[in-house]
Amino acid sequence: MTNPQDRDKHLIETTVSSELVYQGDFLHVKHDVVQLPNGKTAMREHIIHPGAVVIIPILDNGEVLLERQYRYPLSQVFIEFPAGKLDAGEAPLACGKRELLEETGYTASEWAYAGKMHIAIAYTNEVIHIYFAKNLTAGKQKLDSEEFLDVFSAKPEQVLAWSRDGAITDSKTLTCALWLQNYLSGQWPLEWVKD
Amino acid sequence: MTNPQDRDKHLIETTVSSELVYQGDFLHVKHDVVQLPNGKTAMREHIIHPGAVVIIPILDNGEVLLERQYRYPLSQVFIEFPAGKLDAGEAPLACGKRELLEETGYTASEWAYAGKMHIAIAYTNEVIHIYFAKNLTAGKQKLDSEEFLDVFSAKPEQVLAWSRDGAITDSKTLTCALWLQNYLSGQWPLEWVKD
Repeated sequence: MTNPQDRDKHLIETTVSSELVYQGDFLHVKHDVVQLPNGKTAMREHIIHPGAVVIIPILDNGEVLLERQYRYPLSQVFIEFPAGKLDAGEAPLACGKRELLEETGYTASEWAYAGKMHIAIAYTNEVIHIYFAKNLTAGKQKLDSEEFLDVFSAKPEQVLAWSRDGAITDSKTLTCALWLQNYLSGQWPLEWVKD
Repeated sequence: MTNPQDRDKHLIETTVSSELVYQGDFLHVKHDVVQLPNGKTAMREHIIHPGAVVIIPILDNGEVLLERQYRYPLSQVFIEFPAGKLDAGEAPLACGKRELLEETGYTASEWAYAGKMHIAIAYTNEVIHIYFAKNLTAGKQKLDSEEFLDVFSAKPEQVLAWSRDGAITDSKTLTCALWLQNYLSGQWPLEWVKD
């Protein structure tokens, strides 16, 4: 069997040097010199990110919980599934439970791990872990002082229609729409774990 | 009818000041102070991006063209649909044709616009326009000197299976999988334009 390192030798870039060129409150930018597969060198700029979790919460009536949130980089309100960044050392499932509670007020007694996505592979290491949550109980939101969002619910068919017609363009939410469609059709079954 | 500005007043953040804090070869980072809906101020760091295009190329045999490419920020080879950044002033369709040719060597005589996605709405304004291409003719790749990738084809069912099992985790490619699945099932028809 071929070693993947050997199989991909004509694609792999190796680090020559790495420098933290911008350390913001949130964004950390690195500027690296890499050796290309042909032996030449090139520059790679990229962002270090702690990772995140997105949750697809399914209510007992079959609708899913969504949010409307203003996203400053695009000066626009987006429809999104609840999501948030991992705290230092936090496990993805713990993050999912915390974010669902903080942003929507809901807790769930059953969770299922779907998979992960990498959101901008050209320039960040951000990974988003995708969870489904069901058997939801409403409670009180605990938003950060700088966080403002509306919580609402919609039928899965509506989420798919919005994904098609451009009302949903957030890529993590579109990837969740793919999971939701295939889970509900029975094509992508999940393993549910009671909390 | 409610003005959307009024409807979203409790969500919208407005710019107080904006500073370019890092200007790299590729990444441009801004550090803005914003006024929150409650009147307080907060900081927003974000990246200015020119936008990009991704192409779902369908071969006459029904398979789709894909790439395997090493992505340095994640030290990993990814399976992706062909994609690339817009040049200054370039129209998305022109970019799609150029990137398809450069990266795969293929040209297409029919194109269809699907929609757009925003890939990391918390910290970049990057938009990716999604196109389908068909009636493909093979030719010669014109890769940049710093670009190394494998081109291959796979059945749509395989793309969906990989999206489920974690062999595909690139979010733009997962969003394309959603489009591909619904286009092929007839649920999301496209308007094809001859080139």
